Amino acid sequence: MRVLVIGGNGFVGSHVQDALLPKGHSVRVLDRVPERYRAPLPGVDNRTGSCADPSVLAEAMAGVDAVMYLAATSVPSTSSVDVASDVESNLLPMVNTLDAMVRAGVERIVFLSSGGTVYGVTEQSLVSENAPTDPICSYGVVKLASEKYLGMYRHLYGIRPAILRPSNVFGPREGHTGVQGFIGTALMRVLRGEPIEIWGDGSVVRDYLYVDDLARAMLLAVEASVIGPVNIGSGEGRSLLQVIETLSAVTGGKPEVRFLGPRAFDVPRLALAIDRARDVLGWVPAVRFADGVAKYWQWLCRHVV
Amino acid sequence: MRVLVIGGNGFVGSHVQDALLPKGHSVRVLDRVPERYRAPLPGVDNRTGSCADPSVLAEAMAGVDAVMYLAATSVPSTSSVDVASDVESNLLPMVNTLDAMVRAGVERIVFLSSGGTVYGVTEQSLVSENAPTDPICSYGVVKLASEKYLGMYRHLYGIRPAILRPSNVFGPREGHTGVQGFIGTALMRVLRGEPIEIWGDGSVVRDYLYVDDLARAMLLAVEASVIGPVNIGSGEGRSLLQVIETLSAVTGGKPEVRFLGPRAFDVPRLALAIDRARDVLGWVPAVRFADGVAKYWQWLCRHVV
Repeated sequence: MRVLVIGGNGFVGSHVQDALLPKGHSVRVLDRVPERYRAPLPGVDNRTGSCADPSVLAEAMAGVDAVMYLAATSVPSTSSVDVASDVESNLLPMVNTLDAMVRAGVERIVFLSSGGTVYGVTEQSLVSENAPTDPICSYGVVKLASEKYLGMYRHLYGIRPAILRPSNVFGPREGHTGVQGFIGTALMRVLRGEPIEIWGDGSVVRDYLYVDDLARAMLLAVEASVIGPVNIGSGEGRSLLQVIETLSAVTGGKPEVRFLGPRAFDVPRLALAIDRARDVLGWVPAVRFADGVAKYWQWLCRHVV
Repeated sequence: MRVLVIGGNGFVGSHVQDALLPKGHSVRVLDRVPERYRAPLPGVDNRTGSCADPSVLAEAMAGVDAVMYLAATSVPSTSSVDVASDVESNLLPMVNTLDAMVRAGVERIVFLSSGGTVYGVTEQSLVSENAPTDPICSYGVVKLASEKYLGMYRHLYGIRPAILRPSNVFGPREGHTGVQGFIGTALMRVLRGEPIEIWGDGSVVRDYLYVDDLARAMLLAVEASVIGPVNIGSGEGRSLLQVIETLSAVTGGKPEVRFLGPRAFDVPRLALAIDRARDVLGWVPAVRFADGVAKYWQWLCRHVV
């Protein structure tokens, strides 16, 4: 299959390239920048450009069987600082991409949404795809609006969208360290001999997923015919304090923890029900949490000074 | 109460002015244009300008107790022609307004959403506020994204949003005749001796509401403390053929009907459950359908040549 991976040089995108290539798929990447930690992979058709430009999109879309959309300029914790700019930078390129697909006759798209932000505050122990969606950060509203446009383009133009809603993803080549990704930020602090900082009392529960498992889910989704939202997570909630226990075990130290005040945009608890992923994609997470943390730690020790 | 009505010179806005003034409210209107059919009302503080400009918004927001947001540059049937432009012209000004409210310390907003488009295709005979929201036109996606931002600003900044979801509104001073509003478009054709055109076979069911009833609901909402979405409709579904019967009776003629092909963005049936409006606003529609059509017809005969 000839796949255009938009935002393919980012954290998740780089692992999606790794998942697609061994399966014989032809990979074209459209991104504004090259990968941060690696040289371009042999055999990948790299295009540099922005989805803000319809002619760039038209050229990238030529001869493609499917699109994977992973582009994002913001992260949840910073997206609400300038909401108008978040809409301009993230919703408009998504809409441009859908228009380009219609013009080029490309029907299949796998969209990387956000299981961590589209649901908002929830009381459920495990959140399923049909739960209410009331995001409390702009990142989540933009992802949700993108999902709604995917549904509208399906109805009007026959676009066939699979929507993956991942939980908190971590692993090698994660960017934005310090504002996104508790595990990466905490491991970096351990590496530097600094205390780990926690917003709140450490009881906040999240669902952590190793990046290779997400990349494999995206591969399965582009090969399958599933339509609509699919949660991709571990299916288990872990508190920050539990995560720190694992980090201590993996790094072999006893890191100092500094407690800061809680943040308004942190939901107290979020873990994803992943039954639908098993049913429609045959996907279950393969990497145990502690093993994923160990792999990430080994990568950080080699690549970050 | 000092109320800023954004988009107050439009069709619904002009009736909202009529509803606010007799109740002793102080009315300020921010709009890009004056009213189309009337001179500015005495006692209304009219400001000309765009919500794209933060300084215009800041000035309009000064000293205000509540905001009513009715601005829209598109209508459902044309909003999907250029989706990116629809997002820029309608979602960004809404976000700018919320930012201006936070800066000015204004908490209360009554937002005019769209019961006719946010739900999309539905099987329910009467749609309630907790039904799934899967719009099939950009107008509906933008309204829904605006609702989600209202919820986010409530969570982060204490904004208190009432969200009204009206059905198909009709009545004097309706604009966009020809692309929006079957009743106005059909009455205009009767007035000109032209055949009425119908998309589909006339079985499409809608919920029609006289504009004065909507304006009264908005008045009640700004005076009340209700939060979240409230359907505002007749609570009854009418097919296009049934509507044409009423139009014939009101206009005293037997108009010719021309049937065109169905449109992809028309949902087959939509009528709103209005129990919540009764419960939280004490609102029920007061104008019978045939009476509303008669009032509109009389206005058209006087004002349109």
